[in-house]
Amino acid sequence: MTIEYLPLQSGDKMPLIGFGCWKVDPKDAPETIYNAIKVGYRLIDSASNYKNEEAIGKGINMAIKDGLVKREELFVTTKLWSTYHKKEHVREALEKQLEQLGLDYVDMFLVHFPLPLKHVPIDVKYPPGWYQPGEDVITLDRAPMHECWAAMEQLVEAGLTRNIGVSNFNVQLLMDMLTYAKIKPALLQVELHPYLQQEHLVRWVQQQGIAVTAYSSFGPTSFIATGSKRAKGVEPLFENPTIKDIAAKYNRNPSEVCLRWSLERNVAVVPKSLNVDRMKMNLSALDWKMDEEDVQAINQLDMGLRFNDPMVNAQKLPIFY
Amino acid sequence: MTIEYLPLQSGDKMPLIGFGCWKVDPKDAPETIYNAIKVGYRLIDSASNYKNEEAIGKGINMAIKDGLVKREELFVTTKLWSTYHKKEHVREALEKQLEQLGLDYVDMFLVHFPLPLKHVPIDVKYPPGWYQPGEDVITLDRAPMHECWAAMEQLVEAGLTRNIGVSNFNVQLLMDMLTYAKIKPALLQVELHPYLQQEHLVRWVQQQGIAVTAYSSFGPTSFIATGSKRAKGVEPLFENPTIKDIAAKYNRNPSEVCLRWSLERNVAVVPKSLNVDRMKMNLSALDWKMDEEDVQAINQLDMGLRFNDPMVNAQKLPIFY
Repeated sequence: MTIEYLPLQSGDKMPLIGFGCWKVDPKDAPETIYNAIKVGYRLIDSASNYKNEEAIGKGINMAIKDGLVKREELFVTTKLWSTYHKKEHVREALEKQLEQLGLDYVDMFLVHFPLPLKHVPIDVKYPPGWYQPGEDVITLDRAPMHECWAAMEQLVEAGLTRNIGVSNFNVQLLMDMLTYAKIKPALLQVELHPYLQQEHLVRWVQQQGIAVTAYSSFGPTSFIATGSKRAKGVEPLFENPTIKDIAAKYNRNPSEVCLRWSLERNVAVVPKSLNVDRMKMNLSALDWKMDEEDVQAINQLDMGLRFNDPMVNAQKLPIFY
Repeated sequence: MTIEYLPLQSGDKMPLIGFGCWKVDPKDAPETIYNAIKVGYRLIDSASNYKNEEAIGKGINMAIKDGLVKREELFVTTKLWSTYHKKEHVREALEKQLEQLGLDYVDMFLVHFPLPLKHVPIDVKYPPGWYQPGEDVITLDRAPMHECWAAMEQLVEAGLTRNIGVSNFNVQLLMDMLTYAKIKPALLQVELHPYLQQEHLVRWVQQQGIAVTAYSSFGPTSFIATGSKRAKGVEPLFENPTIKDIAAKYNRNPSEVCLRWSLERNVAVVPKSLNVDRMKMNLSALDWKMDEEDVQAINQLDMGLRFNDPMVNAQKLPIFY
């Protein structure tokens, strides 16, 4: 099995399939990441706010130490949490994350949300989450994105990350970023699955030379564990007749159909599984092609249905409106 | 009939109903604006890109000269076109517009779209529209919104406009603006009608102390003349049974129901009509109240259906995605 890559503006190549670390329990993380690398994953998609980076780092370093892989063969992505958007906090955030990961650099550092939350010092609470310690309301801060981005660019110059990008951004904010960025965002990572296809966003972003990664490629299934009512109220993608018929046609699993559909759009994916067989199955989305008519059939399933929406969830933040 | 007002951050008061100048033919504009002021309109909503500002200004000045109204009793809004976003072009754009309008200042100057189009010098083509002269593709420019906004703020300091705001912006870009604005946007003007209610956007923006104006309050009807297929393909609001039933209940016209529904949300409106009786009828949305149950019934009509979408229209710009 051969990893395929997306070219980035820097000349680096990003694996089309990575291992997503969201919701991986820290106690499972070292072994899980070790196994993922062992079965062939070369991209690890992490984030401060997943609250498991130290354990993820252990898995990565075990794999390197055991000679499964060299550091330069891995592509490690992580994300700047929203409480560190002020220009004076961006570098200390990544330095803390590198310390937790046990790495000298990451390959991709993404602004996790277009959301300047009030700073929480690292020695007060780490990782801090959405709220100020002891509070349960969101507090915004005056941290302009153009200053945050300039600090992100300095991390590239400092060699702490090889590439920088964004997550959960829409066209208006990206279009503005393109007016001032010295280093263009290399990647946009957003929620994308057959129920939330965001065709116009994806196409425009790709036209700008920005690579796109889908998160939550399995749609509602990724959100059942979070207690999402919206996820429980909709037909799982794995039971959708269109997805099942296409899976049957190719003798594949419905989950593979979801991943392959994304790859057919030139959109990278970062599925998660603790199970080694399922890890392998997800990786095997690289091994086959889907006929255009099947891509078109899945394109008909779009409902504009977003699950990771801080407006619908506890935070009541309308960042996608 | 008494005009009601929305308070602005500056302390100014903005009329809840204004007269919208989009699609008013320059040959009709002087008389139309004169009549609008005569029947009681105190807000005139203009824009460089409506390509009729000189004629609009004639109507305003005729009304002032004839003693129908004093300048300080009028609230004149106009908009910065997208080819003037660079900081060095913002003031010359408003000065040109003031010259066309025949006014010393406007009351509100809005950034028309979150879209930095390549500059077209005034002496090359005015007003320039969406494209470079002789071209039919959109060319973006590196004009950061934070620099554009700083130039907008200087117009307030220079006394050329009393208030500044934005149009067609979404939460991500507004949230970023709030991190650097010295003068907060006073107003957001967006497409809003029962088929495109944008409830989360409107509520969040109002919570920030930013007033909201609806454009195209009559929904598809406003876009039939532009040749919009989307507008032709949907039931006109004026024939919608819910709207008609509520109109019948209050012995009002369906158009009045659309306007009153907006006012019930504390959202200003800028309807257009060339007909004096209809101008008066639109103004009379101020004279009655709608029961909460009727507001709720109209709230059920939302379809997220946007007509003024440069992605669907010729420009192929996904600024709302």
